[in-house]
Amino acid sequence: MVEPVIIGSVALDTIETPFGKAENALGGSASYSSLAASFFTKPGILSIVGKDFPQEHLELFKSKGINTEGIVTGEKTFRWQGFYEFDMNEAKTLKTELNVLESFKVKVPESYKDSKYIFLGNIDPELQLEVINSIKNPELIVMDTMNFWIQNKKEQLLKTIKKADILVFNDGEARELFNTPNLVKAANQALKLVSKAVIIKKGEHGALLFNGSQHFSAPSFPLENIKDPTGCGDVFGGAFTGYLAKTQNLDDKNMRKAIIYGSILASYNAEGFGTEMLKKVTQDDIEKRFKMFKDIREF
Amino acid sequence: MVEPVIIGSVALDTIETPFGKAENALGGSASYSSLAASFFTKPGILSIVGKDFPQEHLELFKSKGINTEGIVTGEKTFRWQGFYEFDMNEAKTLKTELNVLESFKVKVPESYKDSKYIFLGNIDPELQLEVINSIKNPELIVMDTMNFWIQNKKEQLLKTIKKADILVFNDGEARELFNTPNLVKAANQALKLVSKAVIIKKGEHGALLFNGSQHFSAPSFPLENIKDPTGCGDVFGGAFTGYLAKTQNLDDKNMRKAIIYGSILASYNAEGFGTEMLKKVTQDDIEKRFKMFKDIREF
Repeated sequence: MVEPVIIGSVALDTIETPFGKAENALGGSASYSSLAASFFTKPGILSIVGKDFPQEHLELFKSKGINTEGIVTGEKTFRWQGFYEFDMNEAKTLKTELNVLESFKVKVPESYKDSKYIFLGNIDPELQLEVINSIKNPELIVMDTMNFWIQNKKEQLLKTIKKADILVFNDGEARELFNTPNLVKAANQALKLVSKAVIIKKGEHGALLFNGSQHFSAPSFPLENIKDPTGCGDVFGGAFTGYLAKTQNLDDKNMRKAIIYGSILASYNAEGFGTEMLKKVTQDDIEKRFKMFKDIREF
Repeated sequence: MVEPVIIGSVALDTIETPFGKAENALGGSASYSSLAASFFTKPGILSIVGKDFPQEHLELFKSKGINTEGIVTGEKTFRWQGFYEFDMNEAKTLKTELNVLESFKVKVPESYKDSKYIFLGNIDPELQLEVINSIKNPELIVMDTMNFWIQNKKEQLLKTIKKADILVFNDGEARELFNTPNLVKAANQALKLVSKAVIIKKGEHGALLFNGSQHFSAPSFPLENIKDPTGCGDVFGGAFTGYLAKTQNLDDKNMRKAIIYGSILASYNAEGFGTEMLKKVTQDDIEKRFKMFKDIREF
């Protein structure tokens, strides 16, 4: 059984940070989020790559139990080139080559259609909506987005958000989408659109969960050596949804745990370049950090 | 018994935020922090005011059990005028009249000299050092500061920090003082200077405690209506030190609780103009929010 179904980009990234460089490394929202989800379940990707996409990356997906039937092939893989300055807070884009993404038509394999959990990774909200409409009886739709869609496709974005159960976005996007500096106000606005909950990712400041009656504030893990924050938001969403799909429990307490698992995987991801750490991390590493997360907020 | 001894400014503030205005209201780091500490102990202020300082403010201090013997009188009270823009994150200064602060000589009353707890509120680090040297056997010295002293008196500031047990400063100051965007690195640098712990205040993102072996991340309280954030940092430090002075317990667990009490008082403070909320809040309000703080970080 494929759980969750994940749509997003699969890319070749060239990244430079003050601590190193990676060229044509595996990247894209679907890559990061499916690798993260694979620690909990057997996800399936919906995406597109080019003929130039290295076979080894597809092998990696398969070795992690990720279904790649939903990855179609076009001419040239989507490429992104960016760098981080000293403060590592924000990626600066040097070059974006959309390539195959420009003409991406979602093709949902039969083997995905009975899935109950969907993670809509960052990609055009119209493609996200198509996925929602292609899965027979989804039980939980978790949706991510980014500022590009807020600025360029706001109407379509809001339409898709209204079909989602949980919206996961970062603090800057929350402020921008609802035009308020106050995150509580932004979350309350977002709660009017989705059916279950709103999660605001705050990078080094942790994450917030709002569901109308309860509020949860997840700490971040104190990282002294951040190598490359690329993909941390995707990893968070993928691990969060993967954990919920594994446990099949959507109560408040389990959702809080899912947020901690999302934070754990994101914290490991930032400690290496590209998807490097997602290849190395073990279940033991994850449980070890889970205990540390417990400790850093006990009083 | 006066606990803690608090040095800092006593001011008349004129503040404008998108939600209102206050003119010549009681302000200053010693005012905010001693009112906050007074929920736990009977603090004593070391500061200076002018002949123009309204008697009602001194009466307020006394009614809260705050010792004012250490407040000397000069010509004209220190005045600060500022405003907050839409995002309320940073005060913009319109006018600073130092007045009596320019010639402030600390005079520590005999009744303060046996105190065990000191809170060095934001003021010239040379004055802070004088307080340390005037108290006979201090058991705990908690020190706050601000970017002005980092920029203008760094050498004297570092000298005073080396005499402190706990340094409390905000994330921007931590990054600036130790020239790194990484808060964990900044905290580790600061830990080399102080004897016990480093606390980084992050405003709407909570607070972090580092003591070398343990790390604690305190959530912030989700405020939908922030009226005026002036003094929140001072309130945090005053309540934190007051709680430690009341409980006389410096172990890790109790220090975490003290941070939560600091966060609770700061969260209430932001919900009103100037010191307005510190006059209104009750012990019941504080305990109620303590339970809420427990709930928002449980998983």
